[in-house]
Formats: sequence, C-alpha cells, structure tokens
Amino acid sequence: MTYCLGMLLRDGLVMMADTRTNAGIDNLSVYRKLRILGEEDKSVIAVASAGSLSTTQIAIERAIEGMVAPDSGMIERLDQVPKIRRAAFLLGQAIRKTTHDWQEMSQAGVQFDASLLVGGGVGNERPRLFMVYGAGNFIECGPETPYLQIGELKFGKPILDRALTYETDLYEALKIGLLSYNTTIHSNHAVDLPIDIAVVRNGQARAELTYRIQPGDGYYGQLDALMGDSLRTAIAAMPPPPYREAAHAAPGPARKLKPDPVAAE
Amino acid sequence: MTYCLGMLLRDGLVMMADTRTNAGIDNLSVYRKLRILGEEDKSVIAVASAGSLSTTQIAIERAIEGMVAPDSGMIERLDQVPKIRRAAFLLGQAIRKTTHDWQEMSQAGVQFDASLLVGGGVGNERPRLFMVYGAGNFIECGPETPYLQIGELKFGKPILDRALTYETDLYEALKIGLLSYNTTIHSNHAVDLPIDIAVVRNGQARAELTYRIQPGDGYYGQLDALMGDSLRTAIAAMPPPPYREAAHAAPGPARKLKPDPVAAE
Repeated sequence: MTYCLGMLLRDGLVMMADTRTNAGIDNLSVYRKLRILGEEDKSVIAVASAGSLSTTQIAIERAIEGMVAPDSGMIERLDQVPKIRRAAFLLGQAIRKTTHDWQEMSQAGVQFDASLLVGGGVGNERPRLFMVYGAGNFIECGPETPYLQIGELKFGKPILDRALTYETDLYEALKIGLLSYNTTIHSNHAVDLPIDIAVVRNGQARAELTYRIQPGDGYYGQLDALMGDSLRTAIAAMPPPPYREAAHAAPGPARKLKPDPVAAE
Repeated sequence: MTYCLGMLLRDGLVMMADTRTNAGIDNLSVYRKLRILGEEDKSVIAVASAGSLSTTQIAIERAIEGMVAPDSGMIERLDQVPKIRRAAFLLGQAIRKTTHDWQEMSQAGVQFDASLLVGGGVGNERPRLFMVYGAGNFIECGPETPYLQIGELKFGKPILDRALTYETDLYEALKIGLLSYNTTIHSNHAVDLPIDIAVVRNGQARAELTYRIQPGDGYYGQLDALMGDSLRTAIAAMPPPPYREAAHAAPGPARKLKPDPVAAE
C-alpha cells in the first residue's frame, strides 16, 4: 500500500510519501516513492508515486531519459521542461505509454495502474502541484482544497479537511501531514515509516528541506503520543449523549416483528 | 453510500446506521438501514444493512416470513431463533439466496452485493454482534477489537481505534460512535444525518434506547464544533517539526537528475 500527500500553500509546497511496497502482504519492502529531481537553483520537480512500482519506476526513467511528446513530435526530457506543468504532462505520457506496453504483454487481470503527484517549479515559477492519472490526464491543486492525495487516502483525509488551509505555515502543514500519516498508519499496517518529506518555499528553485523520517523517530513518536492523548482528553470532556432522556420523554417500545421491516418507527 | 457501526462492549451493544441511499449521486433518498426486530423482553435483533437495498430489504423480509434452512430442511423464522447466532445464520442464507436470484435474472455487471451487521440476544443471552457477508458466511465481534463496520468505514475507523475499548461505557461509546460518523460525514457527503441508533444493555432482551438523530440535532452540532476546535487546539499546541535543523546538521543538496531515480539519497 502507499500513501502520498502533496500540500500547496501560500508559502510553498510540502510533499510526503511513505516507502512501503508489497507484492502481497507477506512480501513487504522499502522503496523510495518520493523523488526530488531538478538542478539546484534552476528547477525542482518532486514526484511521488502510487500503484504498480514497475510502471512508475520505468515511466519516471523514460521521462528523465527523454521521450517523443505528442503534438510536438520532439524528444522532451524532464530536465528541459520550461514549466512544471510540462513535467506533469510528460510524466503522464510516460505512465500512459508504459502501462500500455505492459498490458499488451501480460495475462489478463494483472494491474499496472499507477498515479503520481508532481509538484515544484522551474526557474522563478511559483510552485504548482498536479495529480497525474494512469491515462496521462492530470488535475491541478488549488487554494480551495490545498492538498492532493494518492493511494490509501481515506484514513488520513479528515484531519486535513479539519486542520489544513491554504494559509497554513509550511512547517505547521508538515506537522499536520505527519498526523495524517500517523492516523493512516494506526489503521492500515501496509503504510508505515520511513516517510520521505520535501519542503519547497516560494521563490526558491530547490527543496529547502528533504528528509527521511526513520522508524523510531523521536518527534514522530511524540506526535503519536500527543495525538492519542489529546483526542481521548477532548472526547472525555465532551458532554454525554442526551438521547436516552429525549426518548424517555416520548417513549416508544421496541418494534415488534412484522412483515414490513422498513416502516418508520 | 452507507456507514453502519456496531460496538460490542462489556455492558452491552450499541448499533448505529446512517439513512442515506443513492442510485447515483443525483438520486439521494432516506431509507431506514437499522431495524430493531424481536419481541420486547423476549429477544432483540438489531440488523444494519449496507449494499444493494433491493437485496437487503427482501432478504430481511424473507428471514422474517420464514425460509427453508439448509441442513435442517425446516422453515425457520427470525422470531423463532433460539439464539442470536441463528439469526445471523438465517439472515446470511436469506442474503445469499436473494443475491443469487437477482443475479440469475439481471444483465451482467449489475451488483447485488450486500452485507449486514446483526447484533442482540434472545432471552437472557448476553448480546453478541456479527458481520454477515453476501455469501452467507459471517464473523463475530470479540473484545480485542470491540467494533464492526460495514460500508464507508475508513474515514471513521481511526477515532475508534484510538478511543474505543471493550470497557468503554455504553453512552461514552455512543458519543465516540457519533464522532466516527461526524468524521465520515465531513469527508464523504454521501453519508449524512439522519442517523439511527440503538442501545442494548446486558440482561435486557430489548433495546434500552432507539432514536433517530435528525439533521440540525443540537447535540450532534455541539460534538461537531467541539471536535473541530479541540483538534485544531491540540495540533497548534504540538511542537514544530525539527527536521530542518536535523537536515542542516548533515546537509545534502537536492538530487540532480540522473538515470536511476530510485537510488537512496
């Protein structure tokens, strides 16, 4: 399983990815899923991948080595893109072609689906963030919902919806992102540390921070404990449900068995 | 979409279900998905359903009206089961037969999958809780993980994993369950109020509480506001990530473009 998260904020971009892959639950490995490409101070292209590892690894390599782009008919390479949007386009075409090649050769039913988050900027371009689908199409992140997720996204989405806004500070967003991972890791053991992170600040054509959070990381452990404690404390302080009293005021017996079980009480 | 939750605790059983069904996102309706069956002070059989409404409605009606059970070859009815386990078995057989009938008649690709939570007890039986699958097989809830979910379960699972234990008081569990619904509703608009709830206390062959929480419910609104506030307050009080300093102590430049993008930094 995979969980990748990109957050596009007023001050820049935060990208995160776990590193756990599996070919069946009995075959777990650690692979890098967040790659920071680009030439320092000229461009930064952060690529996070989910889905078939054979598809994403080869597709990214194709885009790096150069491939013939539709419409232009020219060979284009990731290190020559004029804008980050073209990097998302090129990577989308690379995934599309790679998936197509595999599927032609494989037995029916094998899945080569893959998706990417592509974020960053070229030159003095303000960072942008895209989600690239297996068909090569992509969507862009905007300030109304300042994040994009791929992979195992549901466990960690509510905390983003409640705590993250476009105005959130970059390192506060990184903290919220880690809590989103922490929530996911508690409920799905196929996502786990190490977690790779990257922070890109507006106006810098490079990653201000790239880091791998290893298992046993002290700060992550601190967040984990604080999250559990504060959640339990908050819930305990909330008032009890009033419904027993409400039902008592207008008592109704348990419904008897009868042929129409869907009638309103 | 549907989210149903059953919690089996030291003191009894709490069952919850939303009421929103859809035949496409443009065709939303309210249907009861939690049915409280049984004869008061003799038995309580709480049935929550997810999946195809045509399957679950008909299957429950078949089990109520009576159907030939495998092995015994006798007609068995929900109001005659000697134990709650037999109710789960009978409902499983009813789903299995109903799904099978529909599928024979339908065009390929139409889904009649359905699943149930079945909880309660017959006579002085201590409440038990089962998850019944479409094939008729079922599993039982135990104290290690004191809840079962069907439907849209991922958004609301982390809060259960963090706050609910077998020892949790029945009405505290109801509060935690509502927060699990609240978290789900924030992230998936296909789940929403009204929410039906039932509480069964050990030693009572009836529901101590059955209630429908309507849109605009004051207590639900209070929980919603408290949850958002306490989450944001807790996150703001957590220390900032230390990784920028850690990375600075052992600086590494952004990786340059090179053919092998998966090499470790």
